[in-house]
Amino acid sequence: MPVNRQITLASLIHGNPTPEHFKLVESAMPSIEEGEFLVRNLYLSLEPAIRGWLEGKESYFPPIPIDGVIKGPTVGRVVESKNSQYQPGDIIFALNRWEDYSVVDESAILLEKLSPKEGIPLSYYVGPLGGSGTTAYCGLHEVGQIQAGQTVVVSAAAGATGSMVGQIAKQRGCRVIGFVGSDAKAKLITEEFGFDAAINYKTAPDLAAAVNELVPDGVDVYYDNVGGAILNAMLTTMKVYGRIVCCGMIADYNQTDNRNPITNLWEVVARQLTMQGFLQFTYHDKVPAALAELEGWIKSDKIKVVEDITEGLANTPQAFGRLMSGATTGKALVKVD
Amino acid sequence: MPVNRQITLASLIHGNPTPEHFKLVESAMPSIEEGEFLVRNLYLSLEPAIRGWLEGKESYFPPIPIDGVIKGPTVGRVVESKNSQYQPGDIIFALNRWEDYSVVDESAILLEKLSPKEGIPLSYYVGPLGGSGTTAYCGLHEVGQIQAGQTVVVSAAAGATGSMVGQIAKQRGCRVIGFVGSDAKAKLITEEFGFDAAINYKTAPDLAAAVNELVPDGVDVYYDNVGGAILNAMLTTMKVYGRIVCCGMIADYNQTDNRNPITNLWEVVARQLTMQGFLQFTYHDKVPAALAELEGWIKSDKIKVVEDITEGLANTPQAFGRLMSGATTGKALVKVD
Repeated sequence: MPVNRQITLASLIHGNPTPEHFKLVESAMPSIEEGEFLVRNLYLSLEPAIRGWLEGKESYFPPIPIDGVIKGPTVGRVVESKNSQYQPGDIIFALNRWEDYSVVDESAILLEKLSPKEGIPLSYYVGPLGGSGTTAYCGLHEVGQIQAGQTVVVSAAAGATGSMVGQIAKQRGCRVIGFVGSDAKAKLITEEFGFDAAINYKTAPDLAAAVNELVPDGVDVYYDNVGGAILNAMLTTMKVYGRIVCCGMIADYNQTDNRNPITNLWEVVARQLTMQGFLQFTYHDKVPAALAELEGWIKSDKIKVVEDITEGLANTPQAFGRLMSGATTGKALVKVD
Repeated sequence: MPVNRQITLASLIHGNPTPEHFKLVESAMPSIEEGEFLVRNLYLSLEPAIRGWLEGKESYFPPIPIDGVIKGPTVGRVVESKNSQYQPGDIIFALNRWEDYSVVDESAILLEKLSPKEGIPLSYYVGPLGGSGTTAYCGLHEVGQIQAGQTVVVSAAAGATGSMVGQIAKQRGCRVIGFVGSDAKAKLITEEFGFDAAINYKTAPDLAAAVNELVPDGVDVYYDNVGGAILNAMLTTMKVYGRIVCCGMIADYNQTDNRNPITNLWEVVARQLTMQGFLQFTYHDKVPAALAELEGWIKSDKIKVVEDITEGLANTPQAFGRLMSGATTGKALVKVD
C-alpha cells in the first residue's frame, strides 16, 4: 500500500534550523473529496519565509504546530481529480506541503496551473518562474515602481529572489548594485547575472559609504530582502522620494526574539521615503503576465538561472538549514524522489 | 535708526534646547532688491522640526550655522516691496526667520499670500491655518489616504499638528485615538477636540495592548509625529495594508546621536504596510484648498483651536525649550512685540 512521506515539525525553532527540528513520517495516502485534486509533488521550493512559520508565533499565516507538516510552495503533477478544472497530468504550482502527495482545491494559496515551456527545466517553475521570480517581478514593478535609468540596490543578491530582482531591473534599463555575503557571490552576480556592482557586506568596512561611493546621487529603489544592518545603512543612501521594497528580513529570521535595531528611520521623513511591505499572494493576478515575460527572458538567455538542487525528500531539513545559514547560491530546491 | 532684532544660534544643540543656546542680536534694517519684499513678522510658529536644524547636521535643509539666524515659519505683513505681486499691507505666510523683519522673494519656502477671514484671529495662520493645519490635512489625505469609517491613531495628539490630525479625521468620519503625555492632555483631546479615546503613553503599561483593546480589528492609519517606542508598538497593531504617515519623530529630536531603536519593522512585511514620510512643501499646491476647508471648519466651530502664545521675540528661546520638553499644549507660537 503506497504511503505519503511527510516532513513535520519536531520542535519549535528559535535559532538556525537543523535536521533535529524536523521529522520524516509516513502517513496513509490521502483521499480527495468533491472539488479537490491530488498532486504528486515533484519539486519543493525552499524559501526563507518558511522559517517564520516554524517558531510558534502568529503572523500572516498561523504557525505550523508541533507534528504539523511543513508548508511550502511546490510544483507537482495532478494524479487524481474531482475538480473539472484540473485533470490528471496537469502541472500546478501552489503553497502545498513538504510531502509526496498533497490534497489541493481551488482555494490553495498561490495556485497556478502551469504550461511549462519547451526547453525550460520544470524545476525552474519553483524558482525563477515560481515564487522567487514572480515576487521579484511584482515587487519591482508594483511596489518599487521602477523606471529605466534608476539605480536599484538589492540585498541577498545571489539568492533566488535577489538574483531575479537584479536581472529584471537590468532588463528594465536600471543600474543595479547587489549586497552579497562572499566574494564568490560578488563575482557571480557581476559576471554571470550582469549586476553593475557588488558589495560584500561581511567585509565592507562601512555599508553606507560603499553605496555612496558607487551612487553619489542617491538610490532610487532599494529592494530589501534582509532588514537589519543593511536596511539601516540603506536608509541613509536613498534619494528624496526613494522607495524601499520590503520583501523580507532574513537578517532577523533566526533571531526574532532579538531583532536587529533600526535607528535611521528619521530618513523616512527627511528624505520623504516610501517603505512598503508586500506578500506575493497580494499580486496573484499579475502572475500570468509576469510568467510570460520571465519565460521569454529565460528562453532567450537574457536572464540566467543558478539552482542549488537537493535530491530526496528526506534531505529537505538539511537543505533548509543550509539555505538559512546563507550557504546556498541561487534557487534552493528539493527534487522529490 | 530702526534695528532688526534677531535670534541667532549661540551653540549647537545636542539635548534639550535652553535659552543659553540662543542669542538676541540687533542688526541693521535690511534693504530689498528688485523682486524682493520686506515683511514685518507678527507671529512666529514654534515647531519641533526646527530642532533638527540646530545641531550642525545636514538634512533636508542645511544646518543653521553658529551665529546664523534661526529659521522658522512666520506670519507677517509686507511693509515695503519691489515685487509687483506683493504690496505693502499684504499678509503672508512663509519659512522666514526669528527676527522683526525678513527679506522675502517668491522662491521662499512655503510662501503663501493669505486672505485672513473675518472672525479668525491672525495667529491661527501660523498654526491650525498654517503649517500645522495644512501638514495634518495633506498628511491625512495625500499620504494616509484616509476614508470614512477607518480608525486613525495619532501621536503627540494634543500638539499643534496632532490635534488638527484628530479633528480633521473626525470631520472625515473616522474613529480617532490619540497618544498624549499627560492625563490633562487626554482630557483635552477627548472632551475638547472630540477624539474617541486617548492613551497616556507615560502611564500605559503596554502601548500595543492599550491600542489593541480599543481597536481589536487593527488600525488603518497611524499618523506618526514621534517615532520611537510608540511607533514600535503601533507597528504591531496595524491592519493588513495599513498606512503609517511619517510626519515627525519628536522622540528622537533631543537625542539624535542615540535614537530609539525600532525592532518591529518585520510587521511592514507581514502586514504589508506602507510607511511614507513627507515634508509639507511637497504638497504646497494643495494648500489653498486645504486652507479653504480648514477655515470653514474653524469658523463653524467644528474644529477647536488651543494656542500657547508667548509674548515678545526675546522670549522665543525659552518658549521653544518648553515646546521641545513636551510642556506646551496646542499650537506654540510667539507674538512679536
